[in-house]
Amino acid sequence: MTDTLRNDLFLRALLREPTPRRPLWLMRQAGRYLPEYRATRARAGNFLNLCTNPELACEVTLQPIDRYGFDAAILFSDILTVPHAMKLGLEFEAGEGPRFERPVRTPRDIDALPVPDPHIDLKYVVDAVALIRRELRGRVPLIGFAGSPWTVGTYMVEGGGSKSFAHIKRMMYEAPAELHRLLDVVTRATVLYLNAQIAAGAQAVMLFDTWGGILTPAQYEEFSLRPMAQVVAALTREADGRRVPSIVFTKGGGAWLERIAAIGCDAVGVDWSTDLATARRAVGGRVALQGNLDPAALYAPPDRLRAETLRVLDSYGPGPGHVFNLGHGITPDVDPERVAVLVETVRNYVPG
Amino acid sequence: MTDTLRNDLFLRALLREPTPRRPLWLMRQAGRYLPEYRATRARAGNFLNLCTNPELACEVTLQPIDRYGFDAAILFSDILTVPHAMKLGLEFEAGEGPRFERPVRTPRDIDALPVPDPHIDLKYVVDAVALIRRELRGRVPLIGFAGSPWTVGTYMVEGGGSKSFAHIKRMMYEAPAELHRLLDVVTRATVLYLNAQIAAGAQAVMLFDTWGGILTPAQYEEFSLRPMAQVVAALTREADGRRVPSIVFTKGGGAWLERIAAIGCDAVGVDWSTDLATARRAVGGRVALQGNLDPAALYAPPDRLRAETLRVLDSYGPGPGHVFNLGHGITPDVDPERVAVLVETVRNYVPG
Repeated sequence: MTDTLRNDLFLRALLREPTPRRPLWLMRQAGRYLPEYRATRARAGNFLNLCTNPELACEVTLQPIDRYGFDAAILFSDILTVPHAMKLGLEFEAGEGPRFERPVRTPRDIDALPVPDPHIDLKYVVDAVALIRRELRGRVPLIGFAGSPWTVGTYMVEGGGSKSFAHIKRMMYEAPAELHRLLDVVTRATVLYLNAQIAAGAQAVMLFDTWGGILTPAQYEEFSLRPMAQVVAALTREADGRRVPSIVFTKGGGAWLERIAAIGCDAVGVDWSTDLATARRAVGGRVALQGNLDPAALYAPPDRLRAETLRVLDSYGPGPGHVFNLGHGITPDVDPERVAVLVETVRNYVPG
Repeated sequence: MTDTLRNDLFLRALLREPTPRRPLWLMRQAGRYLPEYRATRARAGNFLNLCTNPELACEVTLQPIDRYGFDAAILFSDILTVPHAMKLGLEFEAGEGPRFERPVRTPRDIDALPVPDPHIDLKYVVDAVALIRRELRGRVPLIGFAGSPWTVGTYMVEGGGSKSFAHIKRMMYEAPAELHRLLDVVTRATVLYLNAQIAAGAQAVMLFDTWGGILTPAQYEEFSLRPMAQVVAALTREADGRRVPSIVFTKGGGAWLERIAAIGCDAVGVDWSTDLATARRAVGGRVALQGNLDPAALYAPPDRLRAETLRVLDSYGPGPGHVFNLGHGITPDVDPERVAVLVETVRNYVPG
């Protein structure tokens, strides 16, 4: 790729290089809180069509960049594309969240799992990455992503979202070797998938570990962190002569930041339940941090929202290595004007 | 009360006095995993009838004591009895969890909230406590309990369970003074409620803070911990010439154990996401600890279950101050035989 990257604040912050100001983007920045997103999604018919159509995925990816000038774009997709490519029968029921027709519960189910070839089975994602990269024309870097093997495995075994995670926890206690087999398949698939995204133009990658926080410390190490370490170790490290930084984010993983920082990733995502000052002490300058405003702060009146945003910026403290973000995805009921207040506050921030 | 308590291991462990073995009980020990519970509940017709009928509540409270010989009984009730007594229209829809017909959303809704008189509006609970205490005949101590003001307030504002907690978080950011008013009412109601339980015979009390873990550290301090500290400070400290210990349990509060230990409670509950060794270092011998086996470990084959149980016991280490429990309530799909394995393992434990 020969486009010149005109704003590389995000990539530099991930590598803990000094930046003139804190870069920012928001998890789920291309999402339902934006009227232009809702319009495109209405044209797509449903969420899965939006994910699988490169032109539409590109369109919604760029919308928040056009509106707010975020410092990074993130591929519009879903963490369940990988199990979808394993032919488990993914459906998004309205208001219900994702559901797999054929959850993975038995050794035979695990035996039958293919490792999808991203250039065939996930071509729509690879094409979307290439198209978005082209359409960005070097304005900001493009982030590729995948779910963590543990999180993706959780959806595959539960057959959808869950409150109790009874199926996967039962498998973990009754048949841990089977669970490891399943996680191995997902890990291999995730490596191929992320490296295909990098080859197609992704300039940084992020692992979303939504469900690592439901585990005990020992289980987290064994079933969530170790597979993520395997993915990180196998990632393509450079593209276009530039390092491709990796970000690992475990929701509810505040107690384990030090251990996450040790797996070889460049940055660690932090949810809102840990102060960035505490998080920074825990990781000891080993990695950059990304986060962590409470997404609900976007409900606050502008003055309060500014104060909360400044508190997050101040909490990180001086020096490089902070990418401003929310502690979790932005919610659909947020007023886009509030996001503008947040963006302006971060952009004008001068460390005290 | 003139019954002699024949097994006071639980009370002594809560006060960090030496005990010949670790006492144990399980959160939701009187529950759906027991066939005898399901039989009584079927007679009651529904969950609310079971809670509001002292004879039936007494019957199910004693069932796990009879079957397993746990070292403490816990009042069979629900954390939503207090808002139920505030006339918000509580319903338990089958498979849906609790729902309030009239959620609390506006200043006017908050103005209208009464502080229930436990001897009138919650007489069924007070009567159940007295009856259970009588029927226990000094076998083991009886635990009374309430939800934390924050957790109860969350249900009142959301109108039931929630994934996003959008209503109460919006109130927190838009109208924090109103939320404090609401929490004040719940706090006062909770003090009266728990002290009425103590007067009726409860020998220890526990605050269940199910939703403290969804907050930022600063929000937890302000909206969850401070009201719990107010409750703890106002509790009756002695009954029958004996200290009535208090236990505070915030699910997802692993990062805040030190702060919880400082509010004046005798013991802190720990969920499965923190090792007891880590938890014990955090609280520095200031309080006893209660927990924290992963409830899903009860799915494990007996040998594995024994090993996991021993790991929790070992993790606490030598010396007094540990009450064995799960890290959250036992789930309905557990085989009662597995609970017997757990009980036997804890009872025969000899620290290494």
